[in-house]
Amino acid sequence: MNRLTINCDMGEAFGIYSLGRDEDVMPFVTHANIACGFHASDPVVMWRTVRAAKEHGIAVGSHPGLPDREGFGRRAMRMSRQEIAALVLYQTGALRAFLDTEGMKLSHIKPHGALMGMAMQEAAVAEGIADAALAIGVPVIACTDSEMTRVFDSRGVSYSCEFYADLDYDDEGRQLITMHHAAVEPDDAAARVLRAVTQGQARSINGRDVKVAADSICVHSDTPGAVAIARAVHQVVADRL
Amino acid sequence: MNRLTINCDMGEAFGIYSLGRDEDVMPFVTHANIACGFHASDPVVMWRTVRAAKEHGIAVGSHPGLPDREGFGRRAMRMSRQEIAALVLYQTGALRAFLDTEGMKLSHIKPHGALMGMAMQEAAVAEGIADAALAIGVPVIACTDSEMTRVFDSRGVSYSCEFYADLDYDDEGRQLITMHHAAVEPDDAAARVLRAVTQGQARSINGRDVKVAADSICVHSDTPGAVAIARAVHQVVADRL
Amino acid sequence: MNRLTINCDMGEAFGIYSLGRDEDVMPFVTHANIACGFHASDPVVMWRTVRAAKEHGIAVGSHPGLPDREGFGRRAMRMSRQEIAALVLYQTGALRAFLDTEGMKLSHIKPHGALMGMAMQEAAVAEGIADAALAIGVPVIACTDSEMTRVFDSRGVSYSCEFYADLDYDDEGRQLITMHHAAVEPDDAAARVLRAVTQGQARSINGRDVKVAADSICVHSDTPGAVAIARAVHQVVADRL
Amino acid sequence: MNRLTINCDMGEAFGIYSLGRDEDVMPFVTHANIACGFHASDPVVMWRTVRAAKEHGIAVGSHPGLPDREGFGRRAMRMSRQEIAALVLYQTGALRAFLDTEGMKLSHIKPHGALMGMAMQEAAVAEGIADAALAIGVPVIACTDSEMTRVFDSRGVSYSCEFYADLDYDDEGRQLITMHHAAVEPDDAAARVLRAVTQGQARSINGRDVKVAADSICVHSDTPGAVAIARAVHQVVADRL
Repeated sequence: MNRLTINCDMGEAFGIYSLGRDEDVMPFVTHANIACGFHASDPVVMWRTVRAAKEHGIAVGSHPGLPDREGFGRRAMRMSRQEIAALVLYQTGALRAFLDTEGMKLSHIKPHGALMGMAMQEAAVAEGIADAALAIGVPVIACTDSEMTRVFDSRGVSYSCEFYADLDYDDEGRQLITMHHAAVEPDDAAARVLRAVTQGQARSINGRDVKVAADSICVHSDTPGAVAIARAVHQVVADRL
Repeated sequence: MNRLTINCDMGEAFGIYSLGRDEDVMPFVTHANIACGFHASDPVVMWRTVRAAKEHGIAVGSHPGLPDREGFGRRAMRMSRQEIAALVLYQTGALRAFLDTEGMKLSHIKPHGALMGMAMQEAAVAEGIADAALAIGVPVIACTDSEMTRVFDSRGVSYSCEFYADLDYDDEGRQLITMHHAAVEPDDAAARVLRAVTQGQARSINGRDVKVAADSICVHSDTPGAVAIARAVHQVVADRL
Repeated sequence: MNRLTINCDMGEAFGIYSLGRDEDVMPFVTHANIACGFHASDPVVMWRTVRAAKEHGIAVGSHPGLPDREGFGRRAMRMSRQEIAALVLYQTGALRAFLDTEGMKLSHIKPHGALMGMAMQEAAVAEGIADAALAIGVPVIACTDSEMTRVFDSRGVSYSCEFYADLDYDDEGRQLITMHHAAVEPDDAAARVLRAVTQGQARSINGRDVKVAADSICVHSDTPGAVAIARAVHQVVADRL
Repeated sequence: MNRLTINCDMGEAFGIYSLGRDEDVMPFVTHANIACGFHASDPVVMWRTVRAAKEHGIAVGSHPGLPDREGFGRRAMRMSRQEIAALVLYQTGALRAFLDTEGMKLSHIKPHGALMGMAMQEAAVAEGIADAALAIGVPVIACTDSEMTRVFDSRGVSYSCEFYADLDYDDEGRQLITMHHAAVEPDDAAARVLRAVTQGQARSINGRDVKVAADSICVHSDTPGAVAIARAVHQVVADRL
């Protein structure tokens, strides 16, 4: 049986701009998804974040996004399978140079924002991610019951499905991606996570019980109260990590 | 004794924009320096160029540049050693993802434009390139008798010195980097190359004979008449490659 | 009765990269739509193109695009009305600084590529363009029988509808926007234009006669044979300009 | 006699990233210098900041910077006079579109970061700024006793010299531009400003008394304690504004 993991998007600062409390959240996660310079981050931020992950002994995957810093990779763009495959390869390769430098291995790929959202709905985008993942040879963190999982199953791409501790879900069991993350009570987040992990269920934004997969729990480092949420989530699933 | 090589900057198209006649020049070079998306190129162009190099059986190195597409990486920028090391690692890692995908090895690193120019004069820039080259473990194509070679010698960075078939030299034996490459007669270029290779000398822009190193010959793919120049240069040194 | 106009997208070079034969086409058009630095162009190219238009005595409008140089503004992006209004204002204002400097007036706004395509289908995008056009106080070059014209009619935005001399049309009478412009015979283009202008009709890609509006004829400067096409089109409608 | 002014760089947020406490500082300044999308800001941030300035009844000038978001416009770049003139025109024109929309006038131009620093030392850069300022017809906020003031005097460019409430000065009376602004005590800043305004003197970083000009006081909105500093500075010079 696979262990549960807790992943967090990190390294999303850029130049003079800060974002998120990466190092404060690191003690409570097992996997960091590090932004790769397209939707956020830059080479100096990436290297610094890789080093911090190394100090905290956590695994590092790439967090490639759309080429749209102004929209933080949250605005869907019309792109071809080849463009998607190329941008995932490019960004993941860039990150791997810092991992190599620090003597670390690339753990996984987790698409960011609209890239994830597009891959859930468009086969060509999911195929492009599959092309890159198979070339690189690492698993993908994906969203359950989507074009992604359908394509990954048929292509033999290894993946785990994640559950968001701090995002809302619709009645189809899909997370609602927003430009800014709203505040969530740590205890509420922890309770949602525990239910998702043990029962495979979540309460949708319309109050329905919907089926969710939870191989990995995603916490964010820029949600208000991020550190307290991460700590609470970590505590409630610590024995399964 | 090391063999002579002929290198050429390639993959400098961008999006809808073309630049250079890469595939026509490839038969006449041994090493392609592929731009990595900062001063030119994009993920799709990089992948396409790597595939073309594979078909022509030539070696591929990274051609990292300053983050300045508008100036094609030819405008010097004030940057720290850490910023330089990080941008060379980032770009080289990005390129390597495409090489890995195509089953190829990274051959070398050749800094582009103002990054090369800065490294010839500023120790911090040369040190940053050295940091990246040592981390990645490949040699650098450098310019003779500069801060670069001084730093590389002291750090144990492997390098070869290049001679430009189609650029002018000053009285110190340093190539003059220009925004656009002027036309050169193929026979003139070939004669200059032969003299540099056999005698280690070149005629400066002021008519003086200056000492030059020529472990590798650089031809450009966007100089007017690039293919004819590359062919003529290749022919004159073919027995030394 | 309004005179017919001939417009052409110009100033779409970028840094070291060329695109189109702007100055060769200028003698055959009445209005230049100058790119504004988001999908193409840069401040130096914009200024140079404004000066060339001044020398040729042609009117200049802005040609704002999506913030996507890599995709040349031809990849649709999910954007809000406010983002659209802001990016049209920004780009048009930037261009107007060069027009002011050269003592010229801004003539019009013509959205580029996917921005035009999005405005034809999404009311929010058309509203954003309307917001900007009303604030700036110039007419828009639009596509007939779309969300654009519906919104512009209801908002009181002045506009003219254009017909493309060198693009194909679908059965709804809408032009097919492509990443690269295919070659067209000058005589064929001129004949299509004459028919559109005199009869309001075009032959669709499926061979049907479809209704088209043709207040303004659009020629491209980067289509193969662009100058010959522009000359032929100009000749056939010269008495209506 | 001209009145004293207090200016502040604003609108330096970008996409999802915040920077500075613009609206909290606005009550204590007379002029906002709004970033124009090259070193910081984007069209939506610019429009929002123009509206905030309008509500607070303060004057707005452009704050053009180098095309380097990653370095926040604080890394000097080698650029020609024409490139400088074009980028100041472009950015200032872009800002003016939002001012026009809100019924406001452009008040002035204040170069940002390394662009200001370069203009203090390089005549070509100062000339480029002068070209743009004369074309647009507004005064410039400049640094005393520099290439800028020399060029502006000879060209007839109107300008005022600023004194920084929260930066250190060298023995030549020139401010030291840093990547991050260090904390300053409000009372200390106010005392320095009062001395500069009344006596034209400041204490350099080496403890010397140096001559400074202070037609305008610059406060920053991102210095730690920015609001308290702005309030204290405003209070001490309120009768001269």
